[in-house]
Amino acid sequence: MFIHAVSHYLPEQVVGNDHFTQLNGLSDEWITTRTGISERRKAAPDENTSTMSVAVVNRLMAKADLSTVDLIVGATYTPHDTIVTLAHVVQHHLAIADIPTVSVSSACSSLLNAIEIVEGYFALNKASRALVVVTEHNTAYYNEDDTVSGHLWGDGAAALLITKERQSDNDMTITGLLTGGAAHAGKAVEAVVLQPLVRGVIMPYGRDVFQNACIYMPKASLQILERHNLTVADVDYVLPHQANLRISRNVMQTLGLPEEKLISNIQYLGNTGCAGCAIALSERWDSFQKGQRIVVTVFGGGYSYGAMLLEV
Amino acid sequence: MFIHAVSHYLPEQVVGNDHFTQLNGLSDEWITTRTGISERRKAAPDENTSTMSVAVVNRLMAKADLSTVDLIVGATYTPHDTIVTLAHVVQHHLAIADIPTVSVSSACSSLLNAIEIVEGYFALNKASRALVVVTEHNTAYYNEDDTVSGHLWGDGAAALLITKERQSDNDMTITGLLTGGAAHAGKAVEAVVLQPLVRGVIMPYGRDVFQNACIYMPKASLQILERHNLTVADVDYVLPHQANLRISRNVMQTLGLPEEKLISNIQYLGNTGCAGCAIALSERWDSFQKGQRIVVTVFGGGYSYGAMLLEV
Repeated sequence: MFIHAVSHYLPEQVVGNDHFTQLNGLSDEWITTRTGISERRKAAPDENTSTMSVAVVNRLMAKADLSTVDLIVGATYTPHDTIVTLAHVVQHHLAIADIPTVSVSSACSSLLNAIEIVEGYFALNKASRALVVVTEHNTAYYNEDDTVSGHLWGDGAAALLITKERQSDNDMTITGLLTGGAAHAGKAVEAVVLQPLVRGVIMPYGRDVFQNACIYMPKASLQILERHNLTVADVDYVLPHQANLRISRNVMQTLGLPEEKLISNIQYLGNTGCAGCAIALSERWDSFQKGQRIVVTVFGGGYSYGAMLLEV
Repeated sequence: MFIHAVSHYLPEQVVGNDHFTQLNGLSDEWITTRTGISERRKAAPDENTSTMSVAVVNRLMAKADLSTVDLIVGATYTPHDTIVTLAHVVQHHLAIADIPTVSVSSACSSLLNAIEIVEGYFALNKASRALVVVTEHNTAYYNEDDTVSGHLWGDGAAALLITKERQSDNDMTITGLLTGGAAHAGKAVEAVVLQPLVRGVIMPYGRDVFQNACIYMPKASLQILERHNLTVADVDYVLPHQANLRISRNVMQTLGLPEEKLISNIQYLGNTGCAGCAIALSERWDSFQKGQRIVVTVFGGGYSYGAMLLEV
C-alpha cells in the first residue's frame, strides 16, 4: 500500500518555555536539557480534536481527491467526543455515505495501529482508499502545572490518504508495518494515564516510560527491517515517536545511526501524541529523495509500540 | 472465522424504574411504554471499564484457553482511561507479550467494528486467535437527572474469543459482516454526544436517532443476507442493538419477522452500548440450535451501523 498524500495542521498559539518558568519555575535550560522542547502549540478555546481534524482534512483535500475515500480511521487519546468520534466528524465533513468509520486509541502509537487496520481492510477488499486522521488535543487534558509532564505536551493533527494501488510517482510505499501492545512490560498500565473523569494526562513513572521507549523503538525498527531483509545500513531516516529528544537520540545510538538521520519536530511542537510522526512526515514530505528508506517507529502509554518501513 | 466462546459480566447493583420516579418523576409505566426498560445495572464505585473488562475476560478464561490469544481489540465509548485502554489492561492481565492491542470507538456499533478489524488481521495472517472485549460504563458519564435519556443507560461487558479456524463443533460461524459510518445522515453528529470534558451522554435529537436506527438496522440486515444469497425467511433470530424496545420491534416489523425471533435484553439491562448485543449472545449461547442463523445488527451515535450473519 501507498501513502499518496499527507497534510498537517498546527494551532496558531505558540507556548514557549518561559510560560512554564512563570508558572512552575522550570527554566528554559532545565526543560530543553531534559526534553529538547523549546516550544509547543496550543489549540484555541474553540478548537478541539473534531475541529482540528476537519482543518487538517481540508488541507489534504487541496493535495488529493478525497471524494472516493472508502474508509476513515481516526485516532486520538484526547477525544472531544467519544460517540461522535473525530472519524465521524470527518465523514460528515466529506459527506461520503456509508463507508466504514472508526476511531482508535493505542495512545501515542495509534498512527501505526490505524494504518495496520487500513492494511486489513485492503486485504479484505473492503476498501482501497483510506483516510487516516491522527489528532491530539493534549492541552485539553494536561495539567500544565504538573512539573513532571505539564511542559511536554502540544496540540496538532495530521491526515494521510493511503491507497491500495499506487496513484502517482510521488507516492511513498508502505513496505511493511508491525504493531504490538507491551502492557506486560515494566509499569505499563500505570506509567502514563489519562482518565477523562479525573482529568489530566499524568506520568507517575516517567523513567519506566523512558526506558521502555528506548528498548521497544529500536527493537521494532530492527524487526521490520529484518522482515524485509534489510539492515540499519539501508535506512536513510528514522522517525521515532516525538516524546523526548533524549529518547530519540538514545534510539539512534542503539541503532548505531548518526543524528543526521533522525527526523525530529519535538523541539518546536512538543509531544503531539499519535499525530507527531505524521506531522513530521508531512513537514518533510517534499525533501525526501527517490529511493530513500524511512523507518517510522512509535511507542506509547499502555504500553504500545510499532514500526513501519517506508520507501520513497 | 468463528466465535469459539463468549462471556458476559454485569455489575451487581440493579436500578429499577422507581429510582427515576423518585429522581425525575418519570413513572414506571412512562419509561416502559417508551423504552421497554424496567431495570438496568450500575457499576459499583470501584468498578470501571478496566475492571469490568478484566472480570469478563476471567469468565471467558473459564470457557476457553486464552493463553494463545494473538490480538486484542477493545471497544468502549465510556473509557476509564484513553491511554491505558481496556485492551491494554486485558493484555496486562493475560500477561501475553507483544501482540497487537488496540481499543476502538464507533459508539454503540463498536462490537462489529472490532470484529471487522479482527477479520482484517486474520486476512493478513497477522493473527488467528483474537479476543474482543466490549465494555460500557454508561453510569460514569450519564446525567441521571436528564429526563430525556438518563433512564436509558446501563453498565455491562462481554468478551468473545474469535478464531480463524474452527476450534470445536460448538463454534458459531461468522458468515459475513459489514459496517458503515452514517455521519452524513440526519442529525448524526449532534444527536447523541459524549464530550468527556463536559461530562454526560446527552441525546438532544432522540427522534432522529430513533428514525435512523429504524432505517439502518433493517437495511444493513438485508444487505448482509443478500451478500450471502439469503432472505429474511432464512433467519431464525435477529439481535439488534439494544437501544430501545420500540426500535427493536420496528426493525422486526420492517423485516417482516415475528417478535418471537427478536432477541432482547434491554428490558432488564437498559442500553449497555456496544456491549449489549454481545451480552445477549452470551446469555443465549446455550439455547441456539445447530443450523440456526442469527443476524446481529447495530446502530450507534455518530452515526454508525453494521450487520453480522452468524450460523450455529
